[in-house]
Amino acid sequence: MHYTLGELANRLGIRFHGDADCVIDGVTTLTDARTGAITFLTNPRFRKYLGTTRAAAVILRPEELEHCPVNALISDNPYLTYAHVSALFAPDYSAQAPIDASAVIHENATLGEGVSVGANAVIGDGAIVADRVRIGPGCVIGNNSRIGAGSQLNANVTVYHDCVIGERAVIHSGAVIGSDGFGFANDKGRWVKIHQLGRVVIGDDVEIGANTTIDRGAIEDTVIGDNVIIDNLVQVAHNVRIGDHSAVAGCVGIAGSAEIGKHCAFGGGAGILGHLAIADGVTVTAMSLVTNSIKDPGVYSAGTPLEPKSHWQKNYVRFKQLDEMARRIKALEKQLQKLTEG
Amino acid sequence: MHYTLGELANRLGIRFHGDADCVIDGVTTLTDARTGAITFLTNPRFRKYLGTTRAAAVILRPEELEHCPVNALISDNPYLTYAHVSALFAPDYSAQAPIDASAVIHENATLGEGVSVGANAVIGDGAIVADRVRIGPGCVIGNNSRIGAGSQLNANVTVYHDCVIGERAVIHSGAVIGSDGFGFANDKGRWVKIHQLGRVVIGDDVEIGANTTIDRGAIEDTVIGDNVIIDNLVQVAHNVRIGDHSAVAGCVGIAGSAEIGKHCAFGGGAGILGHLAIADGVTVTAMSLVTNSIKDPGVYSAGTPLEPKSHWQKNYVRFKQLDEMARRIKALEKQLQKLTEG
Amino acid sequence: MHYTLGELANRLGIRFHGDADCVIDGVTTLTDARTGAITFLTNPRFRKYLGTTRAAAVILRPEELEHCPVNALISDNPYLTYAHVSALFAPDYSAQAPIDASAVIHENATLGEGVSVGANAVIGDGAIVADRVRIGPGCVIGNNSRIGAGSQLNANVTVYHDCVIGERAVIHSGAVIGSDGFGFANDKGRWVKIHQLGRVVIGDDVEIGANTTIDRGAIEDTVIGDNVIIDNLVQVAHNVRIGDHSAVAGCVGIAGSAEIGKHCAFGGGAGILGHLAIADGVTVTAMSLVTNSIKDPGVYSAGTPLEPKSHWQKNYVRFKQLDEMARRIKALEKQLQKLTEG
Repeated sequence: MHYTLGELANRLGIRFHGDADCVIDGVTTLTDARTGAITFLTNPRFRKYLGTTRAAAVILRPEELEHCPVNALISDNPYLTYAHVSALFAPDYSAQAPIDASAVIHENATLGEGVSVGANAVIGDGAIVADRVRIGPGCVIGNNSRIGAGSQLNANVTVYHDCVIGERAVIHSGAVIGSDGFGFANDKGRWVKIHQLGRVVIGDDVEIGANTTIDRGAIEDTVIGDNVIIDNLVQVAHNVRIGDHSAVAGCVGIAGSAEIGKHCAFGGGAGILGHLAIADGVTVTAMSLVTNSIKDPGVYSAGTPLEPKSHWQKNYVRFKQLDEMARRIKALEKQLQKLTEG
Repeated sequence: MHYTLGELANRLGIRFHGDADCVIDGVTTLTDARTGAITFLTNPRFRKYLGTTRAAAVILRPEELEHCPVNALISDNPYLTYAHVSALFAPDYSAQAPIDASAVIHENATLGEGVSVGANAVIGDGAIVADRVRIGPGCVIGNNSRIGAGSQLNANVTVYHDCVIGERAVIHSGAVIGSDGFGFANDKGRWVKIHQLGRVVIGDDVEIGANTTIDRGAIEDTVIGDNVIIDNLVQVAHNVRIGDHSAVAGCVGIAGSAEIGKHCAFGGGAGILGHLAIADGVTVTAMSLVTNSIKDPGVYSAGTPLEPKSHWQKNYVRFKQLDEMARRIKALEKQLQKLTEG
Repeated sequence: MHYTLGELANRLGIRFHGDADCVIDGVTTLTDARTGAITFLTNPRFRKYLGTTRAAAVILRPEELEHCPVNALISDNPYLTYAHVSALFAPDYSAQAPIDASAVIHENATLGEGVSVGANAVIGDGAIVADRVRIGPGCVIGNNSRIGAGSQLNANVTVYHDCVIGERAVIHSGAVIGSDGFGFANDKGRWVKIHQLGRVVIGDDVEIGANTTIDRGAIEDTVIGDNVIIDNLVQVAHNVRIGDHSAVAGCVGIAGSAEIGKHCAFGGGAGILGHLAIADGVTVTAMSLVTNSIKDPGVYSAGTPLEPKSHWQKNYVRFKQLDEMARRIKALEKQLQKLTEG
């Protein structure tokens, strides 16, 4: 794949500076640039590398143009422009295979136009796969599930029965959509399964990472809003609702029936207990546990600092005395007050 | 699927109140009830919704009957009764396909009566699949492994060679049973693999969540007791033993050779270090790390509270001074004692 | 499989003591030893079990020989010797199937000599699978990816397109190599995908655990060094670099662009934030979060101790007052100084 600078500017609807005919054949970083590739400058901290970049062109803000010795694409949001450029250089292997002969597609499944189905994929009874969906090798689509137009399921994705995935989803390998929620009644010490009769319903423009799991609802549905982005190895329990445009980093666990607002962000390894409500615009930093509902937008954290183990151990054991320490401080204050007053 | 109220009461062996011929066609929640469906009341906090529920029937305790304006199933453990009802409404898609033509079943594998094997599943040499087992599409059952009667493996489950799974197991997609434990000898800085020669042995009535991994033992076996329930994305290392009726929530990690008692419960994201023994009846709350053996039943916790980041940061940095703070309090107490005594 | 003691000593190039013709038919533990099997003694703590072991032979240090009543293999590193012995007893099922008829192998893929491909595996256009590679059932190897000689991919592994895996790798089921990194630009609250155009490049002699995910780089590559060992359910984000001989335990999450040195070790559930540099020889204990670069080798920790919940709660709430407590201690010190000086 290659484009001239002029073509790129034209496709993206933005201005360029320099040689319109310069051929761009890939992407690169500012510091490790190689001839022929395009890169971007977002952080002014990296402006110092502009002068010596070997990139064929740089995407940058208008005010950086004067520092740029090579061709440029001019954008108010260079990272967004880079996102659009990256799409133009992404390989599209899936288009090469229409419906692989080894795929097992139920006679009652419905496939739209331009659908591709990889080798050994399985599509169940009553499943509906909309136009231009790409189903990777080894995927299993359960009975009566629906995949919206333009979605891409990479290899070995599993979608259980009766789930709904919106349009233009990108789902990575090993992701499991619609497994049973973790619901059990206790019969005198013995666990008895609650069959999970809800669905998973996923909006449009969602990305779901590799080996992420999203459980179906117990009675009602688990609901993932539009343009939610979820990283790898995330657990979304039954009846969770995640609002539009929220971002969930890797290894996060969200317990049952948590309701998460729009435009939220969860750092890697964060945890959210069940039956909580989290307002729009909440950010939780990495490996913090949310134990109560959060009403106000803002950034929230928990945890203790990393230290050399020998130091940490001394502080670690003192944690058990924290309440006692607080009481002793109070006692000292009283004694001292008595002393000075006396 | 639908049942009359009388049929449900009859099948469950419990009393009902109201119209025996009322048709129940699904399940619902108390607050979001829709006509024709059944729901349950366990928490008295929700009694207030009884009066206005649109459910066709409610499963409730005898003492709640007087508050119930609609049909009722009467139970001393309504949630357990609901569990039994949920099973009656669970779709049974797998029964539709006996042995899919695309499945690859070794000639030396043994399949019981009423077994179903999904499309593109693979069953190895010497594997034994007991009666009424349902193997989902894309599953791989390794050589000489045994799956007990009535078990259900959802799509894309992997069972390595020589493992044993008991009766009536439910295993969710992407789960891996019998992968190698993480065992290596160190040869002057270089890791050398210890081949893992034990098995995974799983009891009866177990549920294993999506993308959960259970490693085979190094020499002896990794053992999961009867009626253990394990959620999604849980890591069970080699030689771990989990006692009967224990529950492990999502994202928990259990390190090698940990021995966990019966009726234990681990909250989401909890961790258990290796070579520990945990008594029966221990509960560990979410994201807490168990670093020592636990001898007494009870609830155990670790961790710090979530705070707005600006507040948290001030306390976070003080954690490094905790030992010093404790020493300064002690010094103050001594000085003050001297002062008052002097 | 069985070997005489003399054969074992000969294959391993080490000395033995006892009956050269004694037949060894498996491995066992020192305490649970069964007739015919070999075990090892590394920790002097277990020397007390030597006298009563029923093992056919014990691998031990020269200085332990006098305590050993049975046959012995003599080694300066018994655990390493055991590693070599374990390899001799590992079953090699994969060798039984050359290329399963159900595998879907692209005509432009290249397979070396002695390659085995399991049932329903899929190998893409331009993929290169070197000599003696064993591809398990249900694996998917993407277009143009390369798997080095002697590597073993267990069932249901997914390798995306254009990735490189070195020689003698062991990759466990459900692992995903080359999924898209979690990169998005924000367009006025809306996430726009950054297509991930780098690769995953993995060195030689690497082990990767079940359901572990390694994302491809955004522009440059994600790089895993030689002899890196990674446990189950680990997340390695885009552009991460892990140095040779490092070990990553289960459930660890490594955020984007982190650079990890050689001979590092991460305990289970540890987290590493993005864009950090971690020196060679750093160990991070379980469930600790690394928030800054680490320049010096050593052991690092974070976290608070597990306590009975009722105790913990009292200390937990005091964490929010930690900064205030520190200030009050300082105020007390000042007051007291004034008092004693006055």
